[in-house]
Amino acid sequence: MAKIAIIGAGMMGSALAFPARENGNDVRLVGTPLDMEIIDACHKCNRHPKFTRDFPEGISFYQFSQVNDAIKGVDFIIGGVSSFGVQWFSENVLPIIPDGTPLLTVTKGLQDMEDGTLLCYPQLWRKTLDALGKTNSLCAIGGPCTSYELVAHDQSLVAFCGKDKAALEMMRDAMATNYYHPILTDDVIGVEAAVALKNGYALGIALTIGENIRKSGNENEIHYNSQAAAFLQASREMDLLVRMQGGTKDSFMVGIGDLYVTVYGGRTRKVGILLGEGFDIDQALEKLQGVTLESLVVAKRVARALRIQAAKGKVNLENFPFLMHVDDIISRKAPVNIPWNTFTQWRE
Amino acid sequence: MAKIAIIGAGMMGSALAFPARENGNDVRLVGTPLDMEIIDACHKCNRHPKFTRDFPEGISFYQFSQVNDAIKGVDFIIGGVSSFGVQWFSENVLPIIPDGTPLLTVTKGLQDMEDGTLLCYPQLWRKTLDALGKTNSLCAIGGPCTSYELVAHDQSLVAFCGKDKAALEMMRDAMATNYYHPILTDDVIGVEAAVALKNGYALGIALTIGENIRKSGNENEIHYNSQAAAFLQASREMDLLVRMQGGTKDSFMVGIGDLYVTVYGGRTRKVGILLGEGFDIDQALEKLQGVTLESLVVAKRVARALRIQAAKGKVNLENFPFLMHVDDIISRKAPVNIPWNTFTQWRE
Repeated sequence: MAKIAIIGAGMMGSALAFPARENGNDVRLVGTPLDMEIIDACHKCNRHPKFTRDFPEGISFYQFSQVNDAIKGVDFIIGGVSSFGVQWFSENVLPIIPDGTPLLTVTKGLQDMEDGTLLCYPQLWRKTLDALGKTNSLCAIGGPCTSYELVAHDQSLVAFCGKDKAALEMMRDAMATNYYHPILTDDVIGVEAAVALKNGYALGIALTIGENIRKSGNENEIHYNSQAAAFLQASREMDLLVRMQGGTKDSFMVGIGDLYVTVYGGRTRKVGILLGEGFDIDQALEKLQGVTLESLVVAKRVARALRIQAAKGKVNLENFPFLMHVDDIISRKAPVNIPWNTFTQWRE
Repeated sequence: MAKIAIIGAGMMGSALAFPARENGNDVRLVGTPLDMEIIDACHKCNRHPKFTRDFPEGISFYQFSQVNDAIKGVDFIIGGVSSFGVQWFSENVLPIIPDGTPLLTVTKGLQDMEDGTLLCYPQLWRKTLDALGKTNSLCAIGGPCTSYELVAHDQSLVAFCGKDKAALEMMRDAMATNYYHPILTDDVIGVEAAVALKNGYALGIALTIGENIRKSGNENEIHYNSQAAAFLQASREMDLLVRMQGGTKDSFMVGIGDLYVTVYGGRTRKVGILLGEGFDIDQALEKLQGVTLESLVVAKRVARALRIQAAKGKVNLENFPFLMHVDDIISRKAPVNIPWNTFTQWRE
């Protein structure tokens, strides 16, 4: 039995409490300041407001004001914030965690630097921890796993990545269940790049769904040839991008599993469909008011980084016609016009 | 404008008549002896009985008894038979085609030899042509493209593969439309292996859909984590198998696009779901009476070939836990029990 604190009571942080607690661990779910109502609800009825299923019995819920009690003596801490909470996590969590307590984070994303390099959050947080003089192991979760399906006990295969093998194994032993299956790998940048990149491409694939609706005028006009065609091109570009980041082939495979699930996964799909139907990005966001869209951020950042690298002669943008088109749509309101002919001519 | 004869008036052969004719080519659609009623229907109402849309005007329809008229003077011949028609095509079509007329075939599949090697149909037909003293170029179509969505003008990205670049370009120029996009490649064995292999894996992915229905008792219980998990493992094994056959990475990418569309594509999905629900293979086939299932044939053949190669020490079956499980289910009535733990431990 391990003691585990989860910081961030959004859907994914909360979903991870299921396998953690069902394995008999001591689980403390800590809300961020944005999660206060969620934690109140958990106290009242042992259920996350967005889930259709109660938490397993025995989880302790904490407001962020109580975080020091929650993390005292834990074996590891799960960072459950979204990519919009990266800075907050850096400023409010990393300084207070006990030195040496390993971290396992689910935050997906990439940050582009001025020189066109892309860093994943474990790399950014490593810098913060180093500056704080802390030696905590930093591990991360990537791969195909939506929170509500994890809660439903759907079989899920994910990657736990990190350089500290003992920490990874301890986390795996604590978290693995008969429906939650972590692959262990030391390829942090590969996994993180792959699972971040898939967001932009999932949006690209969803464009084809919207285009068919626009052409037919029928909301139920779902075809799969065009989705598969877009999936093929997305896979080519993701493979190349993962390798450019120094990632392994198996991390790319984790990424295309994640791409598959993300095409069906709600928010990214919705904005892609709206864009494909012919709405511009402002109109699409207006229709999806209040929805947070990490996919847009990732696509823009990667495209921006690639354009900088291309200007330096380090990258050929012709290798990434799909991502560039997605970026043109969301950053410059270009009309949707998927460049199929460039896909047939594509050579790495 | 090209003159094109399509031999085989099943759904895929007939679907290819759409881009072919819409491009202004002279198109002759020739039924096999099994297609007599289809050709009669085409004569009567210019529509394939299984399509919801008329053929473009101007296609000529022929019974197989008139095949010699149909193929006279054509620029190329499209072979549109299913994998169950391979032998028939070899015995009845290859002997009568004019020497030199290039062939483009859509038949997907692999044939296992006694020594555990796998041959694709262009390789088998090449031997027949050589024995006949004929020099016809043999090209093939692979990739994500279901017939009914091609007929609906859904965007489709496919691979035309062959060693004769001039023939491929001629075929591409005749067939490419604003919705049908052929990639040209000389990697015949890679494309053919990838698009054949995907059948067995699509069945494997569909097992997870059936398992969720079985667990929940609800036919609409569709989850994607487990499909994505299975997709991830399928991609790993397909990549390895394509490379073992000597194929390129890009052919693997064509194969996973095809895998994506096949999970949604009807027959293979249906049998996978039934097996996942707990029916054995005989019961599943009973329920799908009259349906032809190339996926079963391919999975069995590849598994058989791998077992022979493993016995010779050439292959490690532990690299293929998913395919072996699918084979155990369909060849030996093993109960469905996807080996998730072997997927987490998987190393190439």
